[in-house]
Amino acid sequence: MAIIVQKFGGTSVADTARIQNVALRVKREVDAGHQVAVIVSAMSGITDKLVGYVRDVSDLTTPQQWADYDMVVSAGEQVTSGLLALALADIDIPAQSFAGWMLPMHTDNAYGKARIEEIGTESLHHCFSQGKVAVIAGFQGVSQDGRPSTLGRGGSDTSAVAIAAALGADRCDIYTDVDGVYTADPRIVHKARKLARISYEEMLELASQGSKVLQTRSVAMAMNHGVEVQVLSSFNDQPGTLLVDEEELVEKHKVTGIAYSRDEARITLTEVPNIPGVSAAIFGPLADGNINVDMIVQNVTEGGERTDITFTVPRADLPRALSALKAISSSIEYNTIHSDASVAKVSVIGVGMRSHAGVAQTMFKSLADKGINIIVISTSEIKVSVLIEEAYAELAVRTLHTAYGLDAE
Amino acid sequence: MAIIVQKFGGTSVADTARIQNVALRVKREVDAGHQVAVIVSAMSGITDKLVGYVRDVSDLTTPQQWADYDMVVSAGEQVTSGLLALALADIDIPAQSFAGWMLPMHTDNAYGKARIEEIGTESLHHCFSQGKVAVIAGFQGVSQDGRPSTLGRGGSDTSAVAIAAALGADRCDIYTDVDGVYTADPRIVHKARKLARISYEEMLELASQGSKVLQTRSVAMAMNHGVEVQVLSSFNDQPGTLLVDEEELVEKHKVTGIAYSRDEARITLTEVPNIPGVSAAIFGPLADGNINVDMIVQNVTEGGERTDITFTVPRADLPRALSALKAISSSIEYNTIHSDASVAKVSVIGVGMRSHAGVAQTMFKSLADKGINIIVISTSEIKVSVLIEEAYAELAVRTLHTAYGLDAE
Repeated sequence: MAIIVQKFGGTSVADTARIQNVALRVKREVDAGHQVAVIVSAMSGITDKLVGYVRDVSDLTTPQQWADYDMVVSAGEQVTSGLLALALADIDIPAQSFAGWMLPMHTDNAYGKARIEEIGTESLHHCFSQGKVAVIAGFQGVSQDGRPSTLGRGGSDTSAVAIAAALGADRCDIYTDVDGVYTADPRIVHKARKLARISYEEMLELASQGSKVLQTRSVAMAMNHGVEVQVLSSFNDQPGTLLVDEEELVEKHKVTGIAYSRDEARITLTEVPNIPGVSAAIFGPLADGNINVDMIVQNVTEGGERTDITFTVPRADLPRALSALKAISSSIEYNTIHSDASVAKVSVIGVGMRSHAGVAQTMFKSLADKGINIIVISTSEIKVSVLIEEAYAELAVRTLHTAYGLDAE
Repeated sequence: MAIIVQKFGGTSVADTARIQNVALRVKREVDAGHQVAVIVSAMSGITDKLVGYVRDVSDLTTPQQWADYDMVVSAGEQVTSGLLALALADIDIPAQSFAGWMLPMHTDNAYGKARIEEIGTESLHHCFSQGKVAVIAGFQGVSQDGRPSTLGRGGSDTSAVAIAAALGADRCDIYTDVDGVYTADPRIVHKARKLARISYEEMLELASQGSKVLQTRSVAMAMNHGVEVQVLSSFNDQPGTLLVDEEELVEKHKVTGIAYSRDEARITLTEVPNIPGVSAAIFGPLADGNINVDMIVQNVTEGGERTDITFTVPRADLPRALSALKAISSSIEYNTIHSDASVAKVSVIGVGMRSHAGVAQTMFKSLADKGINIIVISTSEIKVSVLIEEAYAELAVRTLHTAYGLDAE
């Protein structure tokens, strides 16, 4: 008897009719003789509404405030779990709902962005032994202090993968509003193709470079625990995309997919003194402010006493980043500070890069042919990212999709 | 240092602006040097919305379904508790939110209408010792099976009184959308007067005879544990009504208040055999169906072999009651069954009845003078209730209010 974990996102459970539709999908796995644990998100819009209430009354500065924030927002998934259990019972599938504290899913005390520490599975096995489906509120756990905690936005993917790992599940099916992972965002690239398989590592890069299909943490957790994750649509019966180890990829393309992100802003400090410790002096205050610096370029002319430093930060954090940098202007003695929120990051990703040369060169030449200027470049073993003007983002993605031979016939 | 329990109902926390207003009321007690526990209801409309979702997907027949129902509806109070804690922190009053399972408030397993068994107060005392206000989600606890349970509609009053009793609180202030207990519903009787004090027993009768100010169970609990309960408005600063022991009433009126309820329906069975066991045969099936029979009249003529039986049931249960009675028509052998959903119950209540004769007589005469026909009468030590045609309910309440000298100058 296989154990199957299914996860349904906010749009899949947006109203009670869709929750009834989800119940039918769960029924299929039960009818196939499996033990099933279902992880659900909040009905779409609910979390935003709850967060809106919180913003009305609080600016969320202390840990206690984040604890109370988690008390509020964790209610959304709790509601869905109860409703899906009821919808299952209504079609004669015995089911039982669980909030995070009931498993328990133990997390640390980092309210609002808690990390999972340990998952008790006894309650789930007891539920299975009674022939019931376990319907679990995603995105939430219980802190060391015994309070509701949440895993941060998109945390239901992480809940699902973590529970699949803890149960030793045979498969973890992530149902969403797209039917798999594509070579590029199909809303931009009409010739994008759905991937039948993708390696964990590529998926991790895609997720962290802007693809919204899966949450980065959930992919890393699946990779670390070898959880067989499948991404598929709750609105049709098309086959989805399977996450596999690199060795299981039949064919290794140079480039598997193109990701892009508009969630970027560029900051340039000019004429920064070229002395030891200056980078730490610049990036320390940003790290202290929890601002995540991504691409960094520093060009030092040989023997030069001053240098320009360019880097990117999340667009939403730009105002905070600028004030942090202006606060240290006297100690750093840079000349000017420039920023630009109209930039986008475009990335090409593929494990085949390890064995194929010239991937970056193809990227630079294709973009140059279209007159697209590259502001910053950053690379990893299986990824090349460039920062460009935001207006060219879609053109760049389409151009690269064609250049790497990814277009569907 | 006194311990004060405050309870705010759904209209008092209907939106975030009102929650901020509630925070200011809590602040006053904190500024006065008290340790404060606040019990909150769901924001008004939320519970109805959640119940609506449940009705979409379930007909709620099994205990497991009621357990999942409680998972859904308990989310409403949880949200308010977090929001009020945040609103308090925002005005520099340290606070901490609690769901029912976190106290814990232990209940039995009767989901949807659970009864409180024991309340752990250690977490609350710990919260107080840190100088924090405890903000507690009302209406909910945790069952023997370790699942969220709810106390039934209006259960937040019961939560508040039970927590006040467990803490040995000096006062339990119930804030609502009326500013106290009146001699009659002020929307009907413009000359109704607010009572400065009322005895627990009278309040209990008022609540069970139709006054919506306090939930019956909460009054019974306050009486049993001697909790000093005050009913007052969250929208003004008028003094409210204090619930006290009968001995503390300065002046005992013959009649303290007039209650009415439109939530009634009458059923009459004609020519029922006058033999032992027939009442049990009639009312047994109704009890089995959880239908609460209230007023019962049976007139047996001396030596008569047949009798008519009239009784009332909650109006919402009338269809179920009729089908239960039709199902036993062959065994009971009554002649006809009549029912009427257009009836109302009007009650006069007062501990002074114990020592004053003629209270019922005044009632009957006043109603007769207005041409109002009495269908059924029932009495207790401190109450006389009559069932009348619904159309006369308001006239009857006003007439009795004047007849017993309750009208304001």
